Amino acid sequence: MSGFSNPAVDAPLAQDIAKTLRYLAADGVQAANSGHPGMPMGCADIAAVLLTRFLRIDPADTNWFNRDRFVLSAGHGSMLLYSMLHLAGYLPMDELKKFRQIGSMTPGHPEVHEVPGVDVTTGPLAAGFATAAGLALAERMLADRYNRPGCEVVDHFTYVIMGDGCNMEGLSQEAASLAGHLKLGKLIAIYDDNEISIEGSTELAFTEDVNARYESLGWHVQDIDGHDHAAIAQAVINAQNETEKPSIIVAHTTIGKGAPNKAGKASSHGEPLGVEELLAAKQADNWPTEGFYVPEAVTVDFATRKEQWAKIRKAHDELLAAYAQAHGDEAGELKRIAEGKLPEGWKNATPTFEADEKGLATRASGGKVLNAFAAAIDELVGGSADLAPSTKTEITSGKWTDFIAPGSYAGRNIHFGVREHAMGNMVNGLALHGLIPFAATFMVFHDYMRPAVRLAALQNCRSIFVYTHDSFYVGEDGPTHQPIEHMAAMRSIPRLAVMRPADANEVAYAWQYAIGRADGPTAMALTRQNLPTLDRTKYAPADGVLKGGYVLDDDENAEMILVATGSEVSLALDTAKQLREQGRKVRVVSMPCLDLFYQQPQEYQDAVLPKTIAKRVVLEAGIRQGWEGIIGWDGVFVGMDDFGQSGPQQLLAKKFGFTVEGVMEKIQKAGL
Amino acid sequence: MSGFSNPAVDAPLAQDIAKTLRYLAADGVQAANSGHPGMPMGCADIAAVLLTRFLRIDPADTNWFNRDRFVLSAGHGSMLLYSMLHLAGYLPMDELKKFRQIGSMTPGHPEVHEVPGVDVTTGPLAAGFATAAGLALAERMLADRYNRPGCEVVDHFTYVIMGDGCNMEGLSQEAASLAGHLKLGKLIAIYDDNEISIEGSTELAFTEDVNARYESLGWHVQDIDGHDHAAIAQAVINAQNETEKPSIIVAHTTIGKGAPNKAGKASSHGEPLGVEELLAAKQADNWPTEGFYVPEAVTVDFATRKEQWAKIRKAHDELLAAYAQAHGDEAGELKRIAEGKLPEGWKNATPTFEADEKGLATRASGGKVLNAFAAAIDELVGGSADLAPSTKTEITSGKWTDFIAPGSYAGRNIHFGVREHAMGNMVNGLALHGLIPFAATFMVFHDYMRPAVRLAALQNCRSIFVYTHDSFYVGEDGPTHQPIEHMAAMRSIPRLAVMRPADANEVAYAWQYAIGRADGPTAMALTRQNLPTLDRTKYAPADGVLKGGYVLDDDENAEMILVATGSEVSLALDTAKQLREQGRKVRVVSMPCLDLFYQQPQEYQDAVLPKTIAKRVVLEAGIRQGWEGIIGWDGVFVGMDDFGQSGPQQLLAKKFGFTVEGVMEKIQKAGL
Repeated sequence: MSGFSNPAVDAPLAQDIAKTLRYLAADGVQAANSGHPGMPMGCADIAAVLLTRFLRIDPADTNWFNRDRFVLSAGHGSMLLYSMLHLAGYLPMDELKKFRQIGSMTPGHPEVHEVPGVDVTTGPLAAGFATAAGLALAERMLADRYNRPGCEVVDHFTYVIMGDGCNMEGLSQEAASLAGHLKLGKLIAIYDDNEISIEGSTELAFTEDVNARYESLGWHVQDIDGHDHAAIAQAVINAQNETEKPSIIVAHTTIGKGAPNKAGKASSHGEPLGVEELLAAKQADNWPTEGFYVPEAVTVDFATRKEQWAKIRKAHDELLAAYAQAHGDEAGELKRIAEGKLPEGWKNATPTFEADEKGLATRASGGKVLNAFAAAIDELVGGSADLAPSTKTEITSGKWTDFIAPGSYAGRNIHFGVREHAMGNMVNGLALHGLIPFAATFMVFHDYMRPAVRLAALQNCRSIFVYTHDSFYVGEDGPTHQPIEHMAAMRSIPRLAVMRPADANEVAYAWQYAIGRADGPTAMALTRQNLPTLDRTKYAPADGVLKGGYVLDDDENAEMILVATGSEVSLALDTAKQLREQGRKVRVVSMPCLDLFYQQPQEYQDAVLPKTIAKRVVLEAGIRQGWEGIIGWDGVFVGMDDFGQSGPQQLLAKKFGFTVEGVMEKIQKAGL
Repeated sequence: MSGFSNPAVDAPLAQDIAKTLRYLAADGVQAANSGHPGMPMGCADIAAVLLTRFLRIDPADTNWFNRDRFVLSAGHGSMLLYSMLHLAGYLPMDELKKFRQIGSMTPGHPEVHEVPGVDVTTGPLAAGFATAAGLALAERMLADRYNRPGCEVVDHFTYVIMGDGCNMEGLSQEAASLAGHLKLGKLIAIYDDNEISIEGSTELAFTEDVNARYESLGWHVQDIDGHDHAAIAQAVINAQNETEKPSIIVAHTTIGKGAPNKAGKASSHGEPLGVEELLAAKQADNWPTEGFYVPEAVTVDFATRKEQWAKIRKAHDELLAAYAQAHGDEAGELKRIAEGKLPEGWKNATPTFEADEKGLATRASGGKVLNAFAAAIDELVGGSADLAPSTKTEITSGKWTDFIAPGSYAGRNIHFGVREHAMGNMVNGLALHGLIPFAATFMVFHDYMRPAVRLAALQNCRSIFVYTHDSFYVGEDGPTHQPIEHMAAMRSIPRLAVMRPADANEVAYAWQYAIGRADGPTAMALTRQNLPTLDRTKYAPADGVLKGGYVLDDDENAEMILVATGSEVSLALDTAKQLREQGRKVRVVSMPCLDLFYQQPQEYQDAVLPKTIAKRVVLEAGIRQGWEGIIGWDGVFVGMDDFGQSGPQQLLAKKFGFTVEGVMEKIQKAGL
């Protein structure tokens, strides 16, 4: 682990670089007539020091694997980041002028993949900080696996700027506590401590001793003047040298610094300074008043800087080449992971399960499937929020089967602790660093991490959320632990694939889908209770999962369709049997992933669910919402319409109508 | 503010009480063959001391307003609470034997309203702790308003037992930070520090210095042996005497204490000890091996104790009587609030707004409506997660218009800081204490507090969640700040009423509904942007809101229905106008609350949305999910199917098709 810094920039030039960032940002906000000037103006000094002295990046290759990561957790300060990216050569000046316009590369908050040089999508407070902890963990995991003496091919810092809002969110506490525990020494947070929040001084609601708190979490804490370039630089060097603890640099800053009337005030936070105030600020700062001004000296300096960055990249490429010669296999695997490619033939690892009436819980088959894939895919890693024995998600197959521990990162199992929200963002960070991570907990606690799941979807992360105990069949734990609305709530998130497999073989294909899906997250709903493993010689093959829904069992000239997911599929099959005994012609459709089904060609959808068959029964141990399109105006829904109850699951199933008798009664009542 | 304790119980008897609790709990779990024995056995000593020496309750009146509140934040230890409630006379022995059975008074986790003596529904970790902070805040607010010298009619402690899991959740950090800031000196938390979590020792993931953290948050911290009765009692007395700071008593305990093979191990946490281990524990503890054993001396002791509790209650009743004589108005109001009754004639405060084409944002009319009701309803209180200037939720009308501040609680505005999750649970606590609280933030941040909203619904709390900036019309802030799936996600929560009013007058009735709804929470979706105030001489009156949906504008023999919510209602009206110009007969339905509409008699629903009219257009700036039942197989949906984008809202509206032209195009394309 090595520190890195460039020599100090000549002081007047350094001041000019800071002012350039400050006023590019303020100009951008003013031009958009929308945005947040206060944070960029307050943090311009910090940004200038980081950019000129510390960040090892390659503007020519925004995806360079070993770049330092830089996360603006206070994402509303986006114009600061865009201004940095402009000076560094990622963003043309024109884009700064199109801040917050449709189709620009400078959206209101930083968006990864949309803006070159943005490592993490930020804005929801503290999410960037927690994701940065995930990036820093990924760096350590890959370093401990692949680095060899003299060949530290994975070796970068993760820098994050956070604000008061980030530190008020409980999410930051979860991530900080775990980062401290794990001794993520290369995570360096700079806390923009400007003592201002939207409602006014932080004194109104936030008077804790943040420094002492971070010390209690095992962090290295420094307290500096956030406008003193030398102090900032020295603090970063100290933070780099502290290799055992993550570092937080508490930087006291003035929000809106430079603005004569608004500096230090909430009024500089969330709206443009106004033409007059901006003018006055530039004048007071001895700065040319033209918009989007970059002094020649700054341009020249960054030209030299780009050469330095190119050298840094070249040196690393040479290191990689030497590494590849000495450690060909590792180099190949690292390259493959960096490129987000799966190992060849990985799908061959998809396990199959024999038909079995007793069967097993899908959380249990889920564990087996996870391990089957883990044996073939080294980058498949993850953990649970202190529920691994229940979620069955420990990886025991393949390489790197240890648990990650402080100072020891070569494993692939992670104890996240009871920190669902940080877990969600941290796996997003792992995914953004090329790993294929999963996060497991009880499905009802999806709620605790929902913002992270949304960010996984928005960032197109291949994060896999394993949610077990997926319905009232949780049983005795009662309504606080029984998901009712969660399938619907998860399905509502754009781009998230929500899988509720019906048996072990569907689980296998659900995992295959999730792993193969390079551009988005998947949530898996798995049961606590046993489910029969269906006889696939009798029923359609389970790879129908890959189309979201498929005809599992069918009669010629079927006049009624039963559509079910997960644990209700075998109930649907049992009900179909009874209906047939009454002479009815029935089709049973397994619909593990509604979103994916709706992505199929209309002909396929119509073939599975012909509109001519209006007699439809949908079965899911959750709420009706989301199913009306399939139920139609004449169909029946077998589900829940209120919270669950505490009791043994078989008795609850009877009470809530999840028995063949219960379903038959509903069908008869509806006259279907 | 006064401390309270009974004299110490004779030591052998005290031990017997603790053992009674320990083994009643273990027996209950064993009988259910399901549950968590470890926590109750580890905390039996703490529970015994609290119950015998500190808790001021009235088992004869479970709703006694001034009782000490007791919250088991580690809700999985429910059998401990039920055992306490049995000894105290709330629960018959038979119920303990029916632990976790359907319809029993002893569900898997404690449920308020379902179990006499349970103050808060707990189970989702840290939620109880945060709700307790709300209860403690409510106590201070009511005390500062209504207490008079010599007449401290509101004066109780709020005790909470929390575990390692609670302390790992960021939620507890948020609540602890705010409680420390607010100096909630009568909040006393006992931290069951047993160093065991489900995956094993807390050393695996949780090594922060919790004591130092709480000190950094302004808490009074003590560290004790959680099995030493004298130490526990002294710590509680110290905590009572510390009136400026909330207190945490870090009690080192042994999980599963008493169990010879499982004590101190994760294996005692989440499943029954087993018949043999339980037997061995009782034998080692010199305890009779019969199930559900209560020694005669314990029974006798609690008989005396019930008399003491009756005396405490009687003394308070006398104090109240004296208070009523001296301060009749205050006494009347306090009584009314305690009973959850609204002031007479409160509905007369419902404001009306003049028709106005320019109109105003529903967040702005929301602020006016809030203030109109606040002037009439003193118990209407609340605040925002550091967004009051944006959510427009400051109360400036009526009495008590100050902001709550440390040591000064007679206001009704609360600075929650950027702590949405704690805010949600704290307002639930305020509601459980008789206040009518609201919590405001941007709608996209509903996700951050979703578990608390679910608990509001499950607990039938009159919590009002004010969510502004309710769609892509947020504009420039971009996809991280634009709700897309949130209407659907909120509607999915059972018992939660989700209101999206179309104009200022609908806002007025939405608030009237929310305030009048004594048995459940309401979420309000309000716009950032201006909406016309509809001319109600031309359109149907806005009290249609109270039926969830209503015909706003109609043609005789209408052959098409446009259904819309919120900002899309005026778009629907404009589209209807254009359709009429083409000779079409159109009905426009405003549907501010889908759930409420579905609760209306079928005849009303059919009258508003006759099945005979299959040409339907639903307009909502969110996702389709939840609307298919109204759209039917032939209708059209005007909404979103992916995340939003950063840009000026008018341009986004055009891009996403939220213009008359856009809607007309969709209608034509569908051949409607």
